[in-house]
Amino acid sequence: MGSNSLLQTALVVGGGQGIGLGFVRQLLELDNVERVYATYRRVESAAELLAITDARLSCFQMDITDESQIAAVMQGIQIETKALHYVINCVGVLHEGEMQPEKSLRHINGEQLLRYFQVNSVGAMLLFKQVQPLLKHADRSILATISAKVGSIGDNQLGGWYGYRASKTALNMFIRTTAIEYKRTCPQAILVALHPGTTDTKLSLPFQRNVPPEKLFSVDRTVLQLLTVIDGLTSTDSGEFFDWDGSRLPW
Amino acid sequence: MGSNSLLQTALVVGGGQGIGLGFVRQLLELDNVERVYATYRRVESAAELLAITDARLSCFQMDITDESQIAAVMQGIQIETKALHYVINCVGVLHEGEMQPEKSLRHINGEQLLRYFQVNSVGAMLLFKQVQPLLKHADRSILATISAKVGSIGDNQLGGWYGYRASKTALNMFIRTTAIEYKRTCPQAILVALHPGTTDTKLSLPFQRNVPPEKLFSVDRTVLQLLTVIDGLTSTDSGEFFDWDGSRLPW
Repeated sequence: MGSNSLLQTALVVGGGQGIGLGFVRQLLELDNVERVYATYRRVESAAELLAITDARLSCFQMDITDESQIAAVMQGIQIETKALHYVINCVGVLHEGEMQPEKSLRHINGEQLLRYFQVNSVGAMLLFKQVQPLLKHADRSILATISAKVGSIGDNQLGGWYGYRASKTALNMFIRTTAIEYKRTCPQAILVALHPGTTDTKLSLPFQRNVPPEKLFSVDRTVLQLLTVIDGLTSTDSGEFFDWDGSRLPW
Repeated sequence: MGSNSLLQTALVVGGGQGIGLGFVRQLLELDNVERVYATYRRVESAAELLAITDARLSCFQMDITDESQIAAVMQGIQIETKALHYVINCVGVLHEGEMQPEKSLRHINGEQLLRYFQVNSVGAMLLFKQVQPLLKHADRSILATISAKVGSIGDNQLGGWYGYRASKTALNMFIRTTAIEYKRTCPQAILVALHPGTTDTKLSLPFQRNVPPEKLFSVDRTVLQLLTVIDGLTSTDSGEFFDWDGSRLPW
């Protein structure tokens, strides 16, 4: 982001905790970022975000599964600014309450599968629709969504995690299809799906046991790596799926 | 199917009309098929299926989005047989009532997106779970699901049809993930996703205008082509995605 000296605006969706909160913090450290908007779902899990005292930060409570809430946030942002340069979607669910990723077919449950799609895929799609007016401007802009390598069909060797996998696969299709439409409507926007690597957050906490320490990234490291990938993106990268080290991932 | 002289049993899910009905008809023409089970969702759209008078055919009313109905059908089949050799899932929705594939972002609607996932992805997954006991046997068996080339992320150049595309992409991930689990539990089963080509059915009817005549297949031709692909499958093909001519499709 240092390469662009214009004053930049950013929106982090799912900024209440985890990787999203890390993005908010690091964006606020950049001198060329004049405004950071962040959304969070629940006050109870967004304490650290809401404790940040920086006049450049504005926070909105928003549930990504409710299009009217997304639209209201976009209206709130448009009162102040006509253009976003960075939109980072970090919303994602792997487990919540009694919902756990399926180890095998006998754990398959229709309602749980739908919940994965609702949050991880449909929610993102509603965001891609609603945020479009804020990306219609002449400057380079990025719309990045956190996906997951387990959402790669071609890379799938282990099986399991049916709902989470398929919801991220669907998200990848949504970002690619949206990228095709944005090429006509917002040609300066670059849309990508990003795999953050296993990051030390609540999402991965129950599954960290078999992750070698050097492959478990701190939030700070993950965000730094993803910002580096984002910095290097060009328009030909729009609609693609990148690993944390900048390499392409198979669909 | 001629290569296997054993008496074979088949289940066609979504056999009430379209490609599914074509599979029922052609399977009943094969001498080595001793039993065909077919499911349909609504009596009103299954008149041709229900008019077939062949003692080898049994029909069940079943909504693929309701796991208890799938389980009931499997119990009905298990009264007569312990093994299925062909399971063909032809259920899929592209349009119904006011639901139309999205031409652009402004048509995106969260409930419609969820409906695509519910029928095209989650329904199939519930079937893959419930049918497993009938595929645990020593003979070669096939579990084929009708997918669509527009569900290929890598092949997507045109955009649009957000929900249908992503639901078929998710279906592809489900068949691959299930194939990995079945390799341990039912190693004789071969699971594949199939693209039928544009076929002259109610599903494609509103979208046939721009299809060259030689690329619009009759149901009979599509089923013949897909049965030929199925005939040629080997265990190393399990978990893959095939075009109607037997070539591999990219994810």
